[in-house]
Amino acid sequence: MPATDFTKVSEQLCAIVCAHNVLTTPSSMEGYVKDWTGQYRSDALAIVRPVSTQDVSDIVKICIAHHISIVPQGGQKGLCGGGVTIEGHQSIILSLTRMNTIRSIDVNGRTLIAEAGVVLETLHQKSLEHGLIFPLVFGAKGSCTIGGNLSTNAGGSNVVRYGNTRELCIGIEAVMPDGSIINALTGLRKDNTGYDLKNLMIGAEGTLGIITAAVFKLSPVQTSRATAFLSLSSLDVAVDVLNRLQDQTGGGVEAFEYMPREAVDVICNQFPHIRQPLDEPAKTGILLEVASSRPFDAEQLDDGSIRLEDQVVQVLGELMEQELVIDAMVTRSVQQRRDLWEMRESILEAITQNGPAYHFDISLPLAQIASFVDQMNSEAAMHGYLPLTVGHLGDGNLHYALSAKGNERWDSLPLAAMKQFAFDLLIELKGSFSAEHGIGQSKLSIMTKLKEPA
Amino acid sequence: MPATDFTKVSEQLCAIVCAHNVLTTPSSMEGYVKDWTGQYRSDALAIVRPVSTQDVSDIVKICIAHHISIVPQGGQKGLCGGGVTIEGHQSIILSLTRMNTIRSIDVNGRTLIAEAGVVLETLHQKSLEHGLIFPLVFGAKGSCTIGGNLSTNAGGSNVVRYGNTRELCIGIEAVMPDGSIINALTGLRKDNTGYDLKNLMIGAEGTLGIITAAVFKLSPVQTSRATAFLSLSSLDVAVDVLNRLQDQTGGGVEAFEYMPREAVDVICNQFPHIRQPLDEPAKTGILLEVASSRPFDAEQLDDGSIRLEDQVVQVLGELMEQELVIDAMVTRSVQQRRDLWEMRESILEAITQNGPAYHFDISLPLAQIASFVDQMNSEAAMHGYLPLTVGHLGDGNLHYALSAKGNERWDSLPLAAMKQFAFDLLIELKGSFSAEHGIGQSKLSIMTKLKEPA
Repeated sequence: MPATDFTKVSEQLCAIVCAHNVLTTPSSMEGYVKDWTGQYRSDALAIVRPVSTQDVSDIVKICIAHHISIVPQGGQKGLCGGGVTIEGHQSIILSLTRMNTIRSIDVNGRTLIAEAGVVLETLHQKSLEHGLIFPLVFGAKGSCTIGGNLSTNAGGSNVVRYGNTRELCIGIEAVMPDGSIINALTGLRKDNTGYDLKNLMIGAEGTLGIITAAVFKLSPVQTSRATAFLSLSSLDVAVDVLNRLQDQTGGGVEAFEYMPREAVDVICNQFPHIRQPLDEPAKTGILLEVASSRPFDAEQLDDGSIRLEDQVVQVLGELMEQELVIDAMVTRSVQQRRDLWEMRESILEAITQNGPAYHFDISLPLAQIASFVDQMNSEAAMHGYLPLTVGHLGDGNLHYALSAKGNERWDSLPLAAMKQFAFDLLIELKGSFSAEHGIGQSKLSIMTKLKEPA
Repeated sequence: MPATDFTKVSEQLCAIVCAHNVLTTPSSMEGYVKDWTGQYRSDALAIVRPVSTQDVSDIVKICIAHHISIVPQGGQKGLCGGGVTIEGHQSIILSLTRMNTIRSIDVNGRTLIAEAGVVLETLHQKSLEHGLIFPLVFGAKGSCTIGGNLSTNAGGSNVVRYGNTRELCIGIEAVMPDGSIINALTGLRKDNTGYDLKNLMIGAEGTLGIITAAVFKLSPVQTSRATAFLSLSSLDVAVDVLNRLQDQTGGGVEAFEYMPREAVDVICNQFPHIRQPLDEPAKTGILLEVASSRPFDAEQLDDGSIRLEDQVVQVLGELMEQELVIDAMVTRSVQQRRDLWEMRESILEAITQNGPAYHFDISLPLAQIASFVDQMNSEAAMHGYLPLTVGHLGDGNLHYALSAKGNERWDSLPLAAMKQFAFDLLIELKGSFSAEHGIGQSKLSIMTKLKEPA
């Protein structure tokens, strides 16, 4: 489009959102066109920042009339290039960060309506003010927006208990490709009238329409908590151990995070104040957290521990007798618990500081995880890679990173071949190549290959 | 289509499924063309009974070529005419009851793959054989098929804990309208590759394709249980009472069923062996069940009760002190528990025996339930109706039936006006007119009116 034509469009856009919310100069656009990963850069005609659903609808209609594509953007925390434009398309970036109102909270019904640009951590705070929690949690919580979480169906470390973003959302408001507005913010727990548009839009990464607001379920505050680090006899027994913990705690497991020795070592090397949680470093480490809202579980025992901790210690004792668990450390103070979580949450930064790496975000049937890790690790080691894995084992979700081993030079390693090996193995074991980060642009070519056309 | 033409089609169908699985005579078709409710009757050209997914695919391709519609049919337990043909269309009924294999059970991963024609109760039995449960439960369990449950996203009495059919299903296999087969039976807990076809197909009532098999999540057996009948001070406090029970039992509520006095009275009148659970019949009765898999909760106390019962008694005590609960009876024997559930499960039969009635299957935001019931009950009473309601309150789902009051003649009552009142009220209170039974043919005209075009 010649610049003169876009000037006209730009004027129309300014009429909707005011001139200072239509950014067209390189310097004003800079903060929006860079992807967080540094791998992608947008060549957008403008950044447009609506403040209401009606704005979004009006903008969509103008863009249709002028054949301009729209890329919705949230907190720019995506890992796959989903928030940047596609080269050669006439596009604008629609930044939803000004749509950051929490429209209402229904304390008794335990739901909340938030606009797409609300930062995840703001949802946490607002819920807590009403004695409730919004349980979606992960590293980027301080800056990612719930619109982005919805469009990628984001996960996190306590999906094992509360589900992905999809399970937490019970209604959406969205602007469709023709500019019409769908309002499905009723917050009904059951509604079987017509097709399930909500679930179709969630995880569609903005390609079917733009989610402008959503209703979320809130949960009670957990009043007691037990946190532990376990050393398992092998990865094979992990699912069995998880099942037993779930049954004995009434489904109270909030985190069951795989942290193998290599990952913990890299963290401790990069951040020397973080220490190995067990005297004998665990080959198959697990960060376990159990939580309960039952007053009974929060009762203090004579030795200063609470009943929930005591029960977790009992179950772990049984698992050790059966040699499924080799060693375990149950935290006895708030500080010990914080240390464990700091370790878990430092992994991405530790890997990044450690050197170049390639990140897979995959999921597998629970029964196939051990097999995948074994085969990948052998293959990786053979080609000079050091695999750095962490995973939400309860969901079958692994973040598997390949970094260079010891003195190997990253550039000289056969990455294409390793990727091919990984994807072939995933097909064989019926896994998925995108568990919780989305497709974006980074995995489009892979998707074309692996998925059936439908 | 002239009969001679269908003979050719019929020959092709016989080549796929053998002649005795293509039924074309009135007598052989009789069992398949009648709807369970007696309100609908099919004029199908034939009943075709495939045994495999490939059969279904082949049948779809033949029907496309000859412009014949297909109506998939399961256990014929639908309440809305979803399993019958539309008059004037050239249609066959595709009965999936021969596709009744449980293909596999993954005990450690707690999933199971079942074909669409498997009867719900068979799933219950097979799961239990492996120490697990499939928690979808409702009256028709002995004959409804899981294909039908999926296509209507069926609910039931313990949705409050385990979710609808949609939440229990983590993958499907389906035949699309072009005859192609989609296989998404991997059973992954997380998979964000492409659009969410699973959720789109579930609840679509067979209009987007035919679900031939599905992966379901299984849950641990609950080893202790506490069941009670409560009399609430009013319907307004129900959500608050539910929240408190959930928090104090760690989300252990499996049933929270609204049973107002009118409904219990009709049951006790129709089935004299069923007795009022409380000395003073409850205006706002609730059937409550809490369950736990924690060994601790199953421990027996000195008075013969188990710890879970004891804890429920404690919570109910607090709720009575606060005058939210007026009276309560906690069951003390297996027989007492059975009696309560027999009462709950007799409601549909009791209403039917009691005389003609019109059934609404609606859902509402939790905060609006009391308001809906109050307004509907007043309006109904004014027009000579006796409202007979039961509901899964935890999900905001009411089964609201209108029957004739005392000596009123059903035929003389203004049903159209009452329906109009109900639907207007639903719009005002942001409810839904189909919570768990589906649309079928019975609600098509309503849907056209209430839903936005998308």
